[in-house]
Amino acid sequence: MTNTFRGVAASPGIAIAKAFRFTNTRHVPQKQTISDADAEAGRFRQAVEKAKGEIEEIRQLTETRLGAQKAEIFEAHLFLLEDPDLVDAVLDKVNDEKLNAEYALHEVTEAVVEMLMELDNEMVRERAADVKDISGRLMSHLLGKPYATLTGISEETIILAEDLTPSDTAQLDLNYIRGFVTEIGSRTSHSAIMARSLELPAVVGAGAVSASVADGTLIILDAVEGQVIVDPSEEVLAEYREKKQRYDERREQLKLLAQQPSVSADGVHVELAANIGSIEDLMKVLENGADGVGLFRTEFIYMGRNSFPSEEEQYQIYKHVLEKLDGKRVVIRTLDIGGDKELPYLELPKESNPFLGLRALRLCLEREDLFRTQLRALLRASTSGKLNIMFPMIAVLSELREAKRILGEERAKLEQEGIAVSDAIEVGMMIEIPAAALNADHFAKEVDFFSIGTNDLIQYTMAADRMNESVAYLYQPYHPSILRLVNMVIKAGERAGIWTGMCGEMAGDQTAIPLLLGMGLNEFSMSASSVLPARELVGRLSKQEWASLSEQALTMGTQEEVQQFVEQRSQI
Amino acid sequence: MTNTFRGVAASPGIAIAKAFRFTNTRHVPQKQTISDADAEAGRFRQAVEKAKGEIEEIRQLTETRLGAQKAEIFEAHLFLLEDPDLVDAVLDKVNDEKLNAEYALHEVTEAVVEMLMELDNEMVRERAADVKDISGRLMSHLLGKPYATLTGISEETIILAEDLTPSDTAQLDLNYIRGFVTEIGSRTSHSAIMARSLELPAVVGAGAVSASVADGTLIILDAVEGQVIVDPSEEVLAEYREKKQRYDERREQLKLLAQQPSVSADGVHVELAANIGSIEDLMKVLENGADGVGLFRTEFIYMGRNSFPSEEEQYQIYKHVLEKLDGKRVVIRTLDIGGDKELPYLELPKESNPFLGLRALRLCLEREDLFRTQLRALLRASTSGKLNIMFPMIAVLSELREAKRILGEERAKLEQEGIAVSDAIEVGMMIEIPAAALNADHFAKEVDFFSIGTNDLIQYTMAADRMNESVAYLYQPYHPSILRLVNMVIKAGERAGIWTGMCGEMAGDQTAIPLLLGMGLNEFSMSASSVLPARELVGRLSKQEWASLSEQALTMGTQEEVQQFVEQRSQI
Repeated sequence: MTNTFRGVAASPGIAIAKAFRFTNTRHVPQKQTISDADAEAGRFRQAVEKAKGEIEEIRQLTETRLGAQKAEIFEAHLFLLEDPDLVDAVLDKVNDEKLNAEYALHEVTEAVVEMLMELDNEMVRERAADVKDISGRLMSHLLGKPYATLTGISEETIILAEDLTPSDTAQLDLNYIRGFVTEIGSRTSHSAIMARSLELPAVVGAGAVSASVADGTLIILDAVEGQVIVDPSEEVLAEYREKKQRYDERREQLKLLAQQPSVSADGVHVELAANIGSIEDLMKVLENGADGVGLFRTEFIYMGRNSFPSEEEQYQIYKHVLEKLDGKRVVIRTLDIGGDKELPYLELPKESNPFLGLRALRLCLEREDLFRTQLRALLRASTSGKLNIMFPMIAVLSELREAKRILGEERAKLEQEGIAVSDAIEVGMMIEIPAAALNADHFAKEVDFFSIGTNDLIQYTMAADRMNESVAYLYQPYHPSILRLVNMVIKAGERAGIWTGMCGEMAGDQTAIPLLLGMGLNEFSMSASSVLPARELVGRLSKQEWASLSEQALTMGTQEEVQQFVEQRSQI
Repeated sequence: MTNTFRGVAASPGIAIAKAFRFTNTRHVPQKQTISDADAEAGRFRQAVEKAKGEIEEIRQLTETRLGAQKAEIFEAHLFLLEDPDLVDAVLDKVNDEKLNAEYALHEVTEAVVEMLMELDNEMVRERAADVKDISGRLMSHLLGKPYATLTGISEETIILAEDLTPSDTAQLDLNYIRGFVTEIGSRTSHSAIMARSLELPAVVGAGAVSASVADGTLIILDAVEGQVIVDPSEEVLAEYREKKQRYDERREQLKLLAQQPSVSADGVHVELAANIGSIEDLMKVLENGADGVGLFRTEFIYMGRNSFPSEEEQYQIYKHVLEKLDGKRVVIRTLDIGGDKELPYLELPKESNPFLGLRALRLCLEREDLFRTQLRALLRASTSGKLNIMFPMIAVLSELREAKRILGEERAKLEQEGIAVSDAIEVGMMIEIPAAALNADHFAKEVDFFSIGTNDLIQYTMAADRMNESVAYLYQPYHPSILRLVNMVIKAGERAGIWTGMCGEMAGDQTAIPLLLGMGLNEFSMSASSVLPARELVGRLSKQEWASLSEQALTMGTQEEVQQFVEQRSQI
């Protein structure tokens, strides 16, 4: 009987194949007191050695199949098996507390995982998945039960599992495995990230799928819409076979564009960049052939921790991103905290309307200490690539001038300290407050670039909280009032000879792109997965034609008119 | 020793005179059981008769000194002395419960006051002050103690009191009394309202002044700044004598303008209207010679109550206001609830950013029942004067169209019911959301007038909550971005042949007025007390000259530049 599960589309694509339920039971051992601690410690050391051998095999397999970079994770696993925090801690518990090795391992693992989850940032939290993976493997050896693997699969299969560990995902044989569904997890869990990097369709957080689907049942994995259709009818199956074919063909076509320049049908070059929130997003940026990073949201460096990241920590991250982009432009936005983004270690007074309150640059100018630390880290990293620094939430000139003054002071201090700072840093601002858009002429004389943040700009221009469902009807990116502000900003930029980008969701929107190209937008920064479709679209558009079409759109009265107009004209 | 108290400047002006501490002790009687109920009832009836005699005297005195209208309040007092809820209720308690008359009076008064304060709207709440006044007078007679009066004063005096009752304020002999200071109260308490209507300088809510100032001490009552200077030095005294003279002279000059038209130096007529929140504000509107009411904030009809006002209640209020304005334009804004204004009987979901949420017209379109009741009341009242209906918080055309559709439906229903509706109602909208200002060209074709609400327009354009101290620096009414939006709206109105007004604080601001006149604003609606200074200023300005000066201001980059520019040019 057909049954549909919904989950999160973690890695796009469509797969049709038989289900395989993969279970890697978590063992919660009994606590026992042992008499011969030496024998018990020996038993644990043996388990570690066996695990090392297995992981080394997996590492080699992965290197052969997926390349050295993907295999790196298993070097980390091997490294963990020599980590005193893990191995020695277990041995200590066995020797000192006379605990059975299974229970000692369980206790140590739990403590380490808990610490990692709490203490550090996103990158380090990923390590928790590694620790769990290794612990499971060691436990299997101690218990004499096989650690389940996915290596034996030899027919087209979609995996159903509670969750998948790094070694599970590394063993996925892409010759046979067409996708997977996990019961837990979100877009940012390890399995989701891996799926995207393997370009394997995946739906995560789909709930109790395994329990209600027998092995061998035919399923459709629709990781575009985020659904799993179990035992589909012939009709549905036919429909999805066609969908899958169209999807896969288009994907192949788009892939060809990854190494192509972003240029319109009439030869106008634009920059199609990607937005990133963490280092993990970088791989997708490169794979999708983005022309650069148009928005690095640095607040994620500050979140999920218990204290502010140090200058050195930040420096390492900025440097890494700049190096990875290898000379392509990287626009790093200074801290945009406040509003809906809170830090547990930064006490801010409760505000009645946080979106209209002390956030982003406003807060940085109040808390100069935070701001200066970040600016120093950015300036130090500037020699590692093509750095652009961007200030968010500026409404009036005095705010920009103050931010630039502080940046200048930190540059001077670093130079006095003998630390190299690039001379080619561009300093710009987000345009996300109506006042800034309306005053863009004046701002344009004092910055190197603009980047229009449409999410907030729409919110303020419409006076409608973009998180509030009751006023969701006012989130109208193609509304003429928004287009007029956007156009004002681009034209002000042109007159002053600076470039204008856009880093809101609108920049990757297929209806907005023709208008934005026509108005003369220079840079479009979007989620990495939108870059190739955008490049394909831009390649079909004439800038000159859309320059006059966009002028027509600017005279309209409603979003509906604009939308209809663009849809009609795009098909020509 | 000089000592300064701060309070609320409730009625502007400066007075210098000796202090007189006025005490009308509130008696809280003991509860006693009496044996002869008839004798006790007779004692109370006697007190009532004496009180009637006194009030009749005060009424006549007031009529002679201040005119019939001001004496009306004492007719209400006489009426109350025949109100069964008051007099009969006391007699019942005496007869049935064998209570002493003092305690019975106390209990009944407390209950009536409590009911009035809770149950009804602002107008009716004023009655509570009357009931307290009468109760105090009755209590004095029962206790055989004199009810303190202010009639005996025969030298220049400033009164210091805990608070003043209606009969206290009616007895203020304006030949000698120069002003008053109360310890409790706010701008909307009875004594404050009376002071404004008597044009007597008053500071209210000044705290424990009486206790620390001896009778006969010289004090300066600065009811411009809201302060009381006790025992000033010669230097301060000299300074304030000069200030007072300048203030009084200017006030006299301005008064002459109350009956004059609002016209610029080069002969351009504008409309200088007043904002009102309740019926009580009407007297000031008329006294200050406002050309009309540019904003009637109807939400006050809905506040301080336990249920929605009925159609009939609203009709009576709208009719009253229209009649009082006697053919002058009255712009009534439909319900603007939500945001910072909540109603205890209207459960609204909590919003993270209420200023960006479901408020005003957005809410009315969700809760059509409320909206239709108000519209019917307005339509029915329309034959009583020159009614303009104005919709707040419109961002997009669909909202305006929906509101107009509902208004049309209610008009049709009333006409079918045979109820007369004026054909001359103008229907307009507030421009207080950037999107509406940017799209004013299109809106102008579908309304009869615009009124720019600057308080909200500034808040949204700057993305800064106007109630939030930490971003108060962004409340910049002369910022070029605000001026550009205002100019866009006025010009769009001109092109479509409709008039544009402004009803935010900016409309009465002496720095803004020259620019607004220059841009071509047709109507300025402000607090009534700003009307005469505005008329005086407009009379000195050339619209033509400011048309070109305002164009210059529009090209500036900061509020500071604009402010300096206007100040320099205004002095020419």
